[in-house]
Amino acid sequence: MRRTICPGSFDPIHLGHVAVIRRACRLFDEVIVAVSTNPNKKHRFDEQTRLRLVREVFADEPSVVVEPLESGLIADYAASRKAVALVKGLRNGADYDYELPMATMNRTLTGVETVFIPGEPSLLHLSSTLVMEVHGLDGDVSGFVSPQVLDAIKERDRAS
Amino acid sequence: MRRTICPGSFDPIHLGHVAVIRRACRLFDEVIVAVSTNPNKKHRFDEQTRLRLVREVFADEPSVVVEPLESGLIADYAASRKAVALVKGLRNGADYDYELPMATMNRTLTGVETVFIPGEPSLLHLSSTLVMEVHGLDGDVSGFVSPQVLDAIKERDRAS
Amino acid sequence: MRRTICPGSFDPIHLGHVAVIRRACRLFDEVIVAVSTNPNKKHRFDEQTRLRLVREVFADEPSVVVEPLESGLIADYAASRKAVALVKGLRNGADYDYELPMATMNRTLTGVETVFIPGEPSLLHLSSTLVMEVHGLDGDVSGFVSPQVLDAIKERDRAS
Amino acid sequence: MRRTICPGSFDPIHLGHVAVIRRACRLFDEVIVAVSTNPNKKHRFDEQTRLRLVREVFADEPSVVVEPLESGLIADYAASRKAVALVKGLRNGADYDYELPMATMNRTLTGVETVFIPGEPSLLHLSSTLVMEVHGLDGDVSGFVSPQVLDAIKERDRAS
Amino acid sequence: MRRTICPGSFDPIHLGHVAVIRRACRLFDEVIVAVSTNPNKKHRFDEQTRLRLVREVFADEPSVVVEPLESGLIADYAASRKAVALVKGLRNGADYDYELPMATMNRTLTGVETVFIPGEPSLLHLSSTLVMEVHGLDGDVSGFVSPQVLDAIKERDRAS
Amino acid sequence: MRRTICPGSFDPIHLGHVAVIRRACRLFDEVIVAVSTNPNKKHRFDEQTRLRLVREVFADEPSVVVEPLESGLIADYAASRKAVALVKGLRNGADYDYELPMATMNRTLTGVETVFIPGEPSLLHLSSTLVMEVHGLDGDVSGFVSPQVLDAIKERDRAS
Repeated sequence: MRRTICPGSFDPIHLGHVAVIRRACRLFDEVIVAVSTNPNKKHRFDEQTRLRLVREVFADEPSVVVEPLESGLIADYAASRKAVALVKGLRNGADYDYELPMATMNRTLTGVETVFIPGEPSLLHLSSTLVMEVHGLDGDVSGFVSPQVLDAIKERDRAS
Repeated sequence: MRRTICPGSFDPIHLGHVAVIRRACRLFDEVIVAVSTNPNKKHRFDEQTRLRLVREVFADEPSVVVEPLESGLIADYAASRKAVALVKGLRNGADYDYELPMATMNRTLTGVETVFIPGEPSLLHLSSTLVMEVHGLDGDVSGFVSPQVLDAIKERDRAS
Repeated sequence: MRRTICPGSFDPIHLGHVAVIRRACRLFDEVIVAVSTNPNKKHRFDEQTRLRLVREVFADEPSVVVEPLESGLIADYAASRKAVALVKGLRNGADYDYELPMATMNRTLTGVETVFIPGEPSLLHLSSTLVMEVHGLDGDVSGFVSPQVLDAIKERDRAS
Repeated sequence: MRRTICPGSFDPIHLGHVAVIRRACRLFDEVIVAVSTNPNKKHRFDEQTRLRLVREVFADEPSVVVEPLESGLIADYAASRKAVALVKGLRNGADYDYELPMATMNRTLTGVETVFIPGEPSLLHLSSTLVMEVHGLDGDVSGFVSPQVLDAIKERDRAS
Repeated sequence: MRRTICPGSFDPIHLGHVAVIRRACRLFDEVIVAVSTNPNKKHRFDEQTRLRLVREVFADEPSVVVEPLESGLIADYAASRKAVALVKGLRNGADYDYELPMATMNRTLTGVETVFIPGEPSLLHLSSTLVMEVHGLDGDVSGFVSPQVLDAIKERDRAS
Repeated sequence: MRRTICPGSFDPIHLGHVAVIRRACRLFDEVIVAVSTNPNKKHRFDEQTRLRLVREVFADEPSVVVEPLESGLIADYAASRKAVALVKGLRNGADYDYELPMATMNRTLTGVETVFIPGEPSLLHLSSTLVMEVHGLDGDVSGFVSPQVLDAIKERDRAS
C-alpha cells in the first residue's frame, strides 16, 4: 500500500487545500492529512476544530486519514507511518524554490520523498491567511471554503 | 495498481534521469518510461538504441516498463495505459513554470495528473544536450551517464 | 482619449488573449489590437485571416480597433498612433522577466509605457502553439478558442 | 473618466514610488494615492505626515489625489471610488508572483483590476525600509527621496 | 592585494557557508569573514562563540581573517577595510533577486561591488535556522556542520 | 596573479557588456575577454571585427586582454590560461538559473569557478540581438554602444 502524508496547519482548510488533497487521493492508496500545531504561534482555530473541519470536508473520501502531526521531525513521523512520500501543492515556481530545502533535508534525514502537485489554477490565490483577512474586512469568502468551514468562521466571530 | 508515465526523448538517458525514475519507482507500482521520437527533429541516437539503453539501465528494476511513446496526445496515451499520472523531474522553480502549462493542458484534456519530483541536487546540471556537448569537446562524461550509455556514445563516435 | 496597443501575432487568437484584451477595454478608451507578421517566420494563418478572426471575436466590443502592426519599431508605431501604452498579459513572473527588456527599450526609445495585466487564472496554460499542437494530435480545443477560430482551424485542415 | 488607485503605506515615499506614480498619471485621468495605516504595525511616520509628504511631492501633478486608504477591503474602497484599477509597481518577476494572489482576490471580490507598471530601472533597489536603514546607519539618502522627505527624516531624528 | 568581505551572522556556521568561503579564498588574496550581530535579534550563539567557531573551522586557511562586523553601513566597513567586494553565496535565482537591492545600494553608496558565488549543489538546502530546527527535533546534523560546531551545539543544549 | 575569463560572442559588444567587464577589472588582476565563434551559427560581425571592437573599447584598460576563445571546453581553456574563474554578468534571477548548470559542469570538469557580477541597472535591457533589431528598424542605438561599435554597425549597413 502506498501511503503519503499531506502536512499543514489547515487554519482553516480552504478549497485550494481540498483540490490538492483530492488529487493526491487519486495517486496514492492512503493520504494522511497531518494537522500541525506550532506551540510558538497563535492559531486561529484550535487543533480539535482544525482536525474536525478537515474530517468533515473529507467525510466522503475513504482514502483520507486525518490526524494530528506528532511533534518531532516530520521525516521521523513519515518513517513511523511507513509513508513513501510527503505531498505538497504548488502555486508557482517560487513556491518550489521555497519548499525544496525542506524536501532535500527530509530525504537526507530518513529517505522520505516529497512530491509536488500543481494547485487548481482558479484557486491559486487562496491561502488561509488571505481568506481570514478578507473575512475580517467583511468580504464574502463563501466561494473559498467549504460550508462547514464557513460555519466555523462565523462561530468564531460570535465567540470573540 | 498505480501506474505512472515518465516521458522523454532520453537522447541519451543520463544519471539525472535515472535518479528521478528510481524515485518514481518507490512511489508507484509501475513506471512506464515512455521514449518519445519527434519526427521533426534529428535525434542523436535512433529510437531502438534509446529504448535499449533505458532498458539496460533499469534491468534491475522490476517496476520499470520501457516502451516507445505512441504518437498522439500524451494525455490520450496515459488514458490508454490507465496511468494515474505523468511524472516529471524538476531542477528548479523555473522548470516548474515551464512545465505547468503542459500539465494543466493534459489534466484539462483527459484528467491525467502530473506530479513533480525534485531531481538529485548533485546532478541538477545534467541534460542530454550538455552531456553530449561536453563529450563532443573531448570532456570526460563518465561521471554523468551509465557505463552502457558511455559505450553507446563511443560507438556513435566510431560510426561517424 | 487614452489609447493603448495590444500587439501580437494572434496565430490564432485564443481565449487567453481574449480575456486580457477585454480587461484592457475596461481600463482604456481604445485598444488597438495590432496583428504582427514576421517576414522570417511561417505563420499558421495568413495575415488577412488573423485580422478577420480578431475582428469577429471583438465584433461586440466598440473600443477595440484591429489593424496590422506596421513594420518598424513598435515604439514608433505607438507614437504614430498617439498611444499612451502597450498592454501585455502576464502568465507568471518569468513572463515579466522576459518582457521587461523590451518594455524598457520601448520606453527608452520613445517614452511609450508598457502596462502588464494578469491573465485569467483558468486560461494561463493557453498559447497559440500549444492549442495548435493539441489540435494537430486530434485533441479537442473547442474550450480554448472562439467558435469562429475553431471553424478557421477546421477549414485549414481541409485546405492542407 | 478613468480613475485608478495606487495603494501603499508610503512610510516614507521614495523616488521609486514617485516614478511609478508619475507613469500612472500618463496612463489614467486620475490617480488616487491611497495611504494605508496598519493598526497592528508601528509606522515610522504618522499618517498625517505621510499624507502631507505625498501631497507635497505631487503638488505639481494635477491628476494625483492623495487620501487615506479607508479601512476595509481595498476592493470595496476601489468600488466606492469608482476606480477601474489598482496600480502596482513591479521590481522583478518575483514581485509579480507575490502580488498576483491579492490581485486575483480583489478581482474575484468586486471585479476591480490590478495593472502592473515596471519600476524605474535605476531605482529598483529602493524600499522605504532600506532607505531608512541606510539613513539610520548615517548613510546619505538624499539621492533616494525628495527634499521634503529628507527634511522630514531629519526632523524625525531631532524628535527622537 | 585583493581583499573581499563575506558577511553573515554565522549562527552557527554550517558546511554550506564553508564551501562558499573556501571558494572565495581561491579567487581573492584575503577573505574577511565578518560576523554580524543584530542588537534587535536574539542570536543562538553569542558573538564570541560565533567568532571562535568560524576561526576554528578556517584554522588551516591562511587567507581567511575573521572579525566582528563593525556596526554601521557595511559599505562603509568595506571601504574602511579597503575591500574590493562583498562575496555572497547563492542557492538559486530567487536568492539573487533578494540580494540585488542590497548590492545595488552598497555600490551606490561607496562603490563597493558584490560578487556572487554558487553554493555547493549538495549543500544548498542548508541554513543555520534549518540545521538548528532539525537538531532541536532530535535530528542528526553531524553531516551539516563541522565537528567543532557540533560540539558547540551540544554544549548549548547542556547549558539550557 | 588572479586571472579571470569573461567569455561571450560580443556580436557586437554593447555598454551592458562594458559595465560588467569594467567591474571585473576592479576585482581581478587580469580579465581575458574571450571572444567565441560558433561554427554552426551565422554571426553578425566576423571574428576579427568583434575582436577589434572589444580591443578598441578597452584600449584604456590595461588589465583587459582580448583574444579568441579557443575551440574546445571552456573549462580546459580556463585551465590552460591558469584562470581562477569565469566571470558572468547577471540581469536577474532567471539568468542565474540558466547559467548555473554550465557553471556546475565547468567546476566538475576542471575545478574552474564561475563568479557572477550584477549588471548595471540602467543597462539590463541590453542584448546584442535587441540592439541590432532596434537598429535594423531604424531606431537610434547610439546610447547603447560605444562610438566605435556604432561606426562598425553603420559600416556593416553600407556593405550589405
